[in-house]
Amino acid sequence: MADILHRVGVEHSSPQRVYDALTTLDGLSGWWVEKTTGDTGRGGVVEFRFGPGGIDMEVAELDPGRLVRWDVVDGPQEWIGTSVQWDIRQDGDWTIVLFRHEGWREPVEFMHHCSTKWATFLMSLKELLETGTGAPDPRDVRISDWH
Amino acid sequence: MADILHRVGVEHSSPQRVYDALTTLDGLSGWWVEKTTGDTGRGGVVEFRFGPGGIDMEVAELDPGRLVRWDVVDGPQEWIGTSVQWDIRQDGDWTIVLFRHEGWREPVEFMHHCSTKWATFLMSLKELLETGTGAPDPRDVRISDWH
Repeated sequence: MADILHRVGVEHSSPQRVYDALTTLDGLSGWWVEKTTGDTGRGGVVEFRFGPGGIDMEVAELDPGRLVRWDVVDGPQEWIGTSVQWDIRQDGDWTIVLFRHEGWREPVEFMHHCSTKWATFLMSLKELLETGTGAPDPRDVRISDWH
Repeated sequence: MADILHRVGVEHSSPQRVYDALTTLDGLSGWWVEKTTGDTGRGGVVEFRFGPGGIDMEVAELDPGRLVRWDVVDGPQEWIGTSVQWDIRQDGDWTIVLFRHEGWREPVEFMHHCSTKWATFLMSLKELLETGTGAPDPRDVRISDWH
């Protein structure tokens, strides 16, 4: 098993604002994927649609202002059975976001790509909260031929 | 053991140009750390100096246009004993860079930070090669309170 890990700090924000950006359609479409639909409540399924493909996440755990956990229920074959966890806390002026996309079966090349891509989306989340404008798909930062 | 993985593609470049950016003081100081000194040949030690701290890498393996491998010989305690490997290849118009910082003893919070930070430095490498200007320390992208 292999995991993707990341950490960003959001300045002059709050755990509740970060939590809202992870648990509302408006928030998610502001930093990750513009075409986001579905039910963001616990047990609900949120559908993210990138151009031709997509990812469906079941909301597995919610602890307001502290934790969000999604289980991947549909999407790229390598993602099926993996989980994404967000841990949030306040440290002085900074809201710290710890990210883990865990349970990859193998450290395949696509996992390398997703790791870098997640970093750019975490920076997009940070920018959304700090400046009001993120860079969600299809306005996301291009990192390679795989987009 | 835990690894940090990344993948970027550099457009309209070449494996030799990416290799040069990883194996010359001029290249390394253009995307990672401006204060880079030392011997970039096989068996040499390259010294990267960030503000108060630093990292010393021993050049463990070099395969021109294909592979670079560094062993961390000094730096943050969590980095000692870890290795950084770069695999380079051409895919059509894209030079693909696969990155692995491997051998972390534990997936500590600092590893989360370094993973995101490496992603921004890989984007800096890409920008250096595509535009002529990277974002090395101390002009690097700030991602959090840990910089």
